Amino acid sequence: MERLHKIGFSKLTSVEDALKKLFSIIKSAQSFEINTIDSLNYTVANDIKSIIDIPHFDRSAMDGYALISEDSFGASINAPKYCKNIGINEIGEVSNISLNNFEVVRISTGAQIPKGADAVVKIEDTEIDGDTIKIYSPVGPGKNITKRANDIKKGEIIIQKGTQLKPEHIALICSQGINKIIVRKEPKVSIFGTGNELIEVGKILEKKQIYNSNTPMISNLVKLYGGRVIEENIIEDNKELIKGSFLNAISVSDIIIFTGGTSVGTKDYLPELMDKNAYILAHGVAMRPGAPILIANKEDTLIFCLPGTPVAAYIGFLKFVGPSIKKILNSINLDPREECIASIKEDVPVSSIGFLHNLRIRIEKEKTQLIAVPIRLKGSSMISSLTKSDGIVEISPFQEGLKKADPVLVKLHPK
Amino acid sequence: MERLHKIGFSKLTSVEDALKKLFSIIKSAQSFEINTIDSLNYTVANDIKSIIDIPHFDRSAMDGYALISEDSFGASINAPKYCKNIGINEIGEVSNISLNNFEVVRISTGAQIPKGADAVVKIEDTEIDGDTIKIYSPVGPGKNITKRANDIKKGEIIIQKGTQLKPEHIALICSQGINKIIVRKEPKVSIFGTGNELIEVGKILEKKQIYNSNTPMISNLVKLYGGRVIEENIIEDNKELIKGSFLNAISVSDIIIFTGGTSVGTKDYLPELMDKNAYILAHGVAMRPGAPILIANKEDTLIFCLPGTPVAAYIGFLKFVGPSIKKILNSINLDPREECIASIKEDVPVSSIGFLHNLRIRIEKEKTQLIAVPIRLKGSSMISSLTKSDGIVEISPFQEGLKKADPVLVKLHPK
Repeated sequence: MERLHKIGFSKLTSVEDALKKLFSIIKSAQSFEINTIDSLNYTVANDIKSIIDIPHFDRSAMDGYALISEDSFGASINAPKYCKNIGINEIGEVSNISLNNFEVVRISTGAQIPKGADAVVKIEDTEIDGDTIKIYSPVGPGKNITKRANDIKKGEIIIQKGTQLKPEHIALICSQGINKIIVRKEPKVSIFGTGNELIEVGKILEKKQIYNSNTPMISNLVKLYGGRVIEENIIEDNKELIKGSFLNAISVSDIIIFTGGTSVGTKDYLPELMDKNAYILAHGVAMRPGAPILIANKEDTLIFCLPGTPVAAYIGFLKFVGPSIKKILNSINLDPREECIASIKEDVPVSSIGFLHNLRIRIEKEKTQLIAVPIRLKGSSMISSLTKSDGIVEISPFQEGLKKADPVLVKLHPK
Repeated sequence: MERLHKIGFSKLTSVEDALKKLFSIIKSAQSFEINTIDSLNYTVANDIKSIIDIPHFDRSAMDGYALISEDSFGASINAPKYCKNIGINEIGEVSNISLNNFEVVRISTGAQIPKGADAVVKIEDTEIDGDTIKIYSPVGPGKNITKRANDIKKGEIIIQKGTQLKPEHIALICSQGINKIIVRKEPKVSIFGTGNELIEVGKILEKKQIYNSNTPMISNLVKLYGGRVIEENIIEDNKELIKGSFLNAISVSDIIIFTGGTSVGTKDYLPELMDKNAYILAHGVAMRPGAPILIANKEDTLIFCLPGTPVAAYIGFLKFVGPSIKKILNSINLDPREECIASIKEDVPVSSIGFLHNLRIRIEKEKTQLIAVPIRLKGSSMISSLTKSDGIVEISPFQEGLKKADPVLVKLHPK
């Protein structure tokens, strides 16, 4: 009597342990130089330090008149103070004007404060009368002056290594005059969808077939996470074809992703292939959807065999593949999904304690809180449960479920 | 006696009114056909309808045996039911097996349910004894079967027009076999930084100059929002040069963005240029930072003159330019920033009622809530107030400020 079928995933690895094993073997990507302006979404390899003070001179924060503040003391609408306009300081121009008492210099926002001045009175509080400027409002010392190094001090770390660069970071680096920076190379990723049932999008569907939607999904997730797709293909359930694709990909890929064929079905060849040709870190993780995931490595190449059902493949990517890409990039943030806290709309009971559950939810905005509306807890084949949802609430393996109005942390789908 | 200086922005347009005027003149971009797999981040021009049911046949949700459910009734570990295995249904293969009572068919997850069967018993609840399969657990009708059209019905709208495509949308469209879709063309954007003080990143900084950080910031924001930068340059404060660049850009750009030279400084030429060569929709908006913004149009080209201070330029982009790009793309979501609700850490008084204030905040995560830590309310020159913050809390023109522990809506910086 055969008991083989009973084996299945008798021993599941916890998500936490699988990630620990995985991260322990990951090496950082090499780095290269790139123009700062072209660095959007790249991850910086080294701390970037400032090389100049910003601002690098005391500058005016207003359009107005630079003056010695005490000359304005006591000024009011009815009793203005009178000063002599002795010149003009424009932005970007060099001037050597020096101020004495009861002298002012017309100054634009961003222009250098003239020698002698310790404040700027804004133009709305003045009036011109020939060479004389009437000051209608007093200003204290330092008023409307942005001091040198107020924003950034020379030598401080302005961008931490492992930061993924966004427009505001690029602006900050450019403001330092740094036109080239060192970033991590994008990990090279090969993606294979396995299964006799798969046909290419655009062909005519025959009975029992399904269109390949996993590899387009995964390849676009790889792009969002900062990897580079070097191969994307579907392979039929044929041991030799799968093995051939795998061995070809090994030498050129940092990551190989299979979808389908990871479970204990009669045509699930991948576990055997990995057992013989790689080192299996985990096969079967305590997560739903996504339990049949297999994670392996062959030297520095990571191999992820994700389930063929699209939602399980998606969640398997978010939980294991994406963070591995980020770890290779030596990123500060291994799970870059944006997070919010919401109140769960209804009870969500969970029957199988011990599993990390991925509840897909939609966010509704109320006046003072966000509401997480459960879309689907179970089922891994419905892609519409992803497109109809905004994010995922993870229910920990130790939780029996969620009670209505519980605050929950929502991980929004990657954008 | 000259009162010119007093004029300034005596009349500010509210942010709401400026957006209303702006949106009322915006026309949607043309559309074009693209391969579904290459459509990441594009915005779909038309509703996409499903052309097949998903699944398009009744399929098994488990590895196991398809059977007539009533044959399993009463089964238990101690009293299994016995059935005859009459064949196998594999994924992607066509089979015409038909079941009678006390017959089962071995079936893989995703394979078609054989004729006659109305349930699947999972493999863990069975045992093989030659041709005989022992069933240890009863299954009700429909158990472990995913019915045809359970995910998607043929003819329903699966992607709404105006959706920006993410990996899960691409997967859904591919699952329909739709390999080409119609998306909006990226608006063409020209960007000019104006100011004598600006020098190109990489050159040597002279006294009173500053490195150009605005155009790299804006051009990368344009990319994130789905526009295409066709020109990016800095121009010195010279009427004729600015006019020349403007007139050249008009005929080839959907959007022209200037930074700097928008206020009432002595060298702010842009208001005059726009007055003579375009139609000004708003000059001066009731927003801080960002008040000196000028918005104009010349036929179908939109013109945004943003302040030269980087934070004001950034916020001006987020509030006006980005939503205009999205409106041109006919996007469902004109402000694509992710949102969360947090509790404000401390009182934030606001002195000037009537302005929309943009408070930069950092998010801290506590157990059951997010805390918004104010970084900076005022000041528009400090880029570090952007890189050190996670998002912006808008304080409405009618609010006197925020009280500690108030719930606030945070708009996270675009990613």
